[in-house]
Amino acid sequence: MELFTVTNVTRGSDRLWVHFSCLCFISFYVVYLLHKEYNEITRRRIEHLKYHCKRPDQYTILVRGIPTCPDHGTYGCYVDHFFSKHYQTYQSYQIVHDIGNIEALQKLAYSIDKQIKRKRETRKCNIWQWIWFKFTSEAINIQRQERKLKDVLLAIRLLQCENTLKQKEVPVAFVTFKSRLDAVHAAEMQLLGNPLSLVTTYAPEPKDMIWKNLAIPFWRMAMYKLGVFVAAFLLTVFFTIPVTAVQGIVQFNKIKRWFPPARALQLIPGLNSVVTGYLPGMILNGFIYLVPFAMLGMASFEGCIANSQKEIKACNMVFYFLLGNVFFLSILSGSLLDQLGESFTHPKDIPSRLASAVSAQSDLFITYILTNGMSGFSLEVLQFGLLTWQFLKAHSLGHGKEPYLYGFPYYRVVPIVSLAILIGVVYAVVAPLLLPFLLIYFLLGYAVYINQMEDVYEFTYDTCGQYWPNIHHYIFLSVTLMQITMIGLFGLKSKPGASFATIPLLVFNILFNEYCKVRFLPTFHHRPVQVAKQSDELDEAEGTTGNLDGAISAYKPPWMRPTNLESGSVRPLTV
Amino acid sequence: MELFTVTNVTRGSDRLWVHFSCLCFISFYVVYLLHKEYNEITRRRIEHLKYHCKRPDQYTILVRGIPTCPDHGTYGCYVDHFFSKHYQTYQSYQIVHDIGNIEALQKLAYSIDKQIKRKRETRKCNIWQWIWFKFTSEAINIQRQERKLKDVLLAIRLLQCENTLKQKEVPVAFVTFKSRLDAVHAAEMQLLGNPLSLVTTYAPEPKDMIWKNLAIPFWRMAMYKLGVFVAAFLLTVFFTIPVTAVQGIVQFNKIKRWFPPARALQLIPGLNSVVTGYLPGMILNGFIYLVPFAMLGMASFEGCIANSQKEIKACNMVFYFLLGNVFFLSILSGSLLDQLGESFTHPKDIPSRLASAVSAQSDLFITYILTNGMSGFSLEVLQFGLLTWQFLKAHSLGHGKEPYLYGFPYYRVVPIVSLAILIGVVYAVVAPLLLPFLLIYFLLGYAVYINQMEDVYEFTYDTCGQYWPNIHHYIFLSVTLMQITMIGLFGLKSKPGASFATIPLLVFNILFNEYCKVRFLPTFHHRPVQVAKQSDELDEAEGTTGNLDGAISAYKPPWMRPTNLESGSVRPLTV
Repeated sequence: MELFTVTNVTRGSDRLWVHFSCLCFISFYVVYLLHKEYNEITRRRIEHLKYHCKRPDQYTILVRGIPTCPDHGTYGCYVDHFFSKHYQTYQSYQIVHDIGNIEALQKLAYSIDKQIKRKRETRKCNIWQWIWFKFTSEAINIQRQERKLKDVLLAIRLLQCENTLKQKEVPVAFVTFKSRLDAVHAAEMQLLGNPLSLVTTYAPEPKDMIWKNLAIPFWRMAMYKLGVFVAAFLLTVFFTIPVTAVQGIVQFNKIKRWFPPARALQLIPGLNSVVTGYLPGMILNGFIYLVPFAMLGMASFEGCIANSQKEIKACNMVFYFLLGNVFFLSILSGSLLDQLGESFTHPKDIPSRLASAVSAQSDLFITYILTNGMSGFSLEVLQFGLLTWQFLKAHSLGHGKEPYLYGFPYYRVVPIVSLAILIGVVYAVVAPLLLPFLLIYFLLGYAVYINQMEDVYEFTYDTCGQYWPNIHHYIFLSVTLMQITMIGLFGLKSKPGASFATIPLLVFNILFNEYCKVRFLPTFHHRPVQVAKQSDELDEAEGTTGNLDGAISAYKPPWMRPTNLESGSVRPLTV
Repeated sequence: MELFTVTNVTRGSDRLWVHFSCLCFISFYVVYLLHKEYNEITRRRIEHLKYHCKRPDQYTILVRGIPTCPDHGTYGCYVDHFFSKHYQTYQSYQIVHDIGNIEALQKLAYSIDKQIKRKRETRKCNIWQWIWFKFTSEAINIQRQERKLKDVLLAIRLLQCENTLKQKEVPVAFVTFKSRLDAVHAAEMQLLGNPLSLVTTYAPEPKDMIWKNLAIPFWRMAMYKLGVFVAAFLLTVFFTIPVTAVQGIVQFNKIKRWFPPARALQLIPGLNSVVTGYLPGMILNGFIYLVPFAMLGMASFEGCIANSQKEIKACNMVFYFLLGNVFFLSILSGSLLDQLGESFTHPKDIPSRLASAVSAQSDLFITYILTNGMSGFSLEVLQFGLLTWQFLKAHSLGHGKEPYLYGFPYYRVVPIVSLAILIGVVYAVVAPLLLPFLLIYFLLGYAVYINQMEDVYEFTYDTCGQYWPNIHHYIFLSVTLMQITMIGLFGLKSKPGASFATIPLLVFNILFNEYCKVRFLPTFHHRPVQVAKQSDELDEAEGTTGNLDGAISAYKPPWMRPTNLESGSVRPLTV
């Protein structure tokens, strides 16, 4: 497994230069592939922006921190004055209101309506149920519920009426333009002298919006961000403590005492030792399985205005969690906290410590890829988590058997796959025997995820490739980690020449990353003027104004729409 | 001097809380002042942008990385097509050419012309000089020089003609708009899918331009930047080595041996010891005096397109140099390199080491402020450096007695004054007796610099307050350094409670800095849309188009203008 056991005997062997040339080849090839891929994805993003030019979010910007109009004292007035003065193709605006209460009321109305319907259907059904119905005086119950529903609907209508809405305005608005060029200009420029007033961003897709977060003011959002960062950091660093505690409590011997039927497992020969051996690992994996959901929950406290932003945040947090608690904790002994403390006090020793730890643990990662990778795929195919969640929801909260269609869980899949890439890159030179296992993992993963994406999940948002810069960064980190490990390893094997020769490689890698930040990243944050103009010209040639009417109505929050119980449209768009 | 010698006896004295409350008061007061000042300077910047709305740089943007037009194969054609299509108020463009040679030729023509004139004047002067003139056959010399001048002027005209210029085009152009709003939009947006092609920035003021750097392509500029960063870093870290070497060589005893007249100093009683004692210090100060010029020289290799950018770069480099080689080297013994190495291996000990070093060295900084500060002012008033430089130039290079008018040397003054602020802030709690000396220093400095600015120096550029964010950052660094020192000091004085209580103060300070970056900094990098529109409206109300014609001609490089020897206008604008 470890090629270095050979060279370990002859210290400072010249055969280490073979490893060095492998390192060079892999480094440059990864850089080449990364460049090619970033280029390709940038091209596709621009194509995609052009292709989806009729989408309402291309005409619409989100304005926050609106000052009040000095003449009329309202936010809407200021927006109207400002944009009609500065942009010729300004169309209209839609002020956002802070009435999260309506959403809850609409949900309540929706659930009462469902209950009434179910009970009515039961009444029609058969004689036994009819008797049961009479016996439990459900008729009175239905009447009571109908009265309640009427009250709720009245309350909703009262809240939705003009006068109440006026009082609940927040300094946030959607502004629609007739041309995409003006929307692009308005979204990316600093409009006023104070950069925190009249802050503009591109509006997310209507179905991607998290409406209730729009009302959060800036300073609270900054506080939330800081809080979430601290919480995610603490979770990552102190994760091992609760896990070890649970592992100490939940032992097979103790379970047998408290839950006697578990003794049945002992009857099957050999199973006892399997359970005793695997239980701590299963507990750890169970916790790790829950982490993406915990991170997503944390990210939703951050006050992101779009689900896609939230999931990208969660994706980043999960990746760094896995890097710390799966990769570093596996290769280094002890808790992550001790390791961090030691690294902080002796930063110069990091490469050599990393090297000695990495070269010792390649077997462990083959096991990791084989067990966790494969079990992850089977869980994904079986949809174990979602089915359990659905079962629990249906039988405890009484939501019935609605069809469930969720978006692809990028925040769970991307970090795990990125971790596999990281393991592959770090071990590519040290222990190449790991690579075939990774190849199987990726081939299987490709088959599984292509199927899942096409048949199981729903498209919930379209970020036009916003995930790629993050994945690029993970791969960049992998290559950096590989090079630092190799610097340490060549040092350990008494080859300081090779160790020093790796440093320019590391510098080149960092410079390449800086180049990518300048060459490709801006296109993922901005929309080029040329692309917007081309779409505008296409519309002009067609003699239409694109999907402009759609854009105006698309950014009406769901709670502003009438409560239509029959068609079931009360259910908010954001689930 | 040191208040802590009192509390040193009673370890962990409760009187340390007085120091802690002083620390709190100073921290919050500095934060309050910084906020007030940043707010004020932001307001002034916007006022200034409005006031100078007729300046040509408000209509003009600089475009770099222009692709060639697919139809005609020229850069100019592409610029014209692109901007006339995307911006309604596009006016004209001015392609930049890579003929730095012309500038040298024009300088040559200018100097030959001067020599001829001088000699002719000599001929008219008096009889002795006339005889000398005849005797040395200067007449033939003049004729030869006149012929040479003619050749040079012909060469310039040949280079300036259309056909030669066409071949020397570089993908850089100045683009002028009729409205400031479009100029602002075009300067700040990403225009094409590739963010490195058609890169736009605001054009610097014409008199601030460094024309010859316009032709430098991006990748070379990035290389230069990296090179300058490495060079400045090396100079800062290894500065002490050559200084110590020179100090070793130049000793008074050795000088006496090589230059016997120096023995005369020994005749004056007491002077011998003064010279022996002060010589090493004077050598160090002499080197430090030269550093700003060295840094400015380095910064000019970076390929900045404006003198103001170059000087801001130099200003930053000089500040960090002084922080390392005056502040840290004075308080810590040994060379900066050793200190960096030790800090790198034991980052946790930094606060306590800093604290023990800082509290021991307050006398030294009083001496520093009194001697270097005062001698700096006298040098500034006497203009010693410039006069020497002018003398050397006049007598060796033969440039004659031109009047010299330089711009205010911000890159030299700002870092030195910032260092004084840093010393004041760091010692404000530890050794408040230093403050009266600083007060004298600042009062004197105010008087000196106000006078110098009004009567001695010329205005060479106007950045609309671009220096402030840097000065703000230096003061922020001072406060951070003070707080880290106090954390260490409370720890050393067995007051861990006060030590931990300082950490929130440090966090608050960092958060305040982040807030400033969001609230104020963008206004220094962008120009608000509202301001540009207001200036446009003012012009419309006046029925003019501002100073638009001036804008078009202002960005003609000096070497494109006819060589007019009589009026002396050959001399390029950028000196």
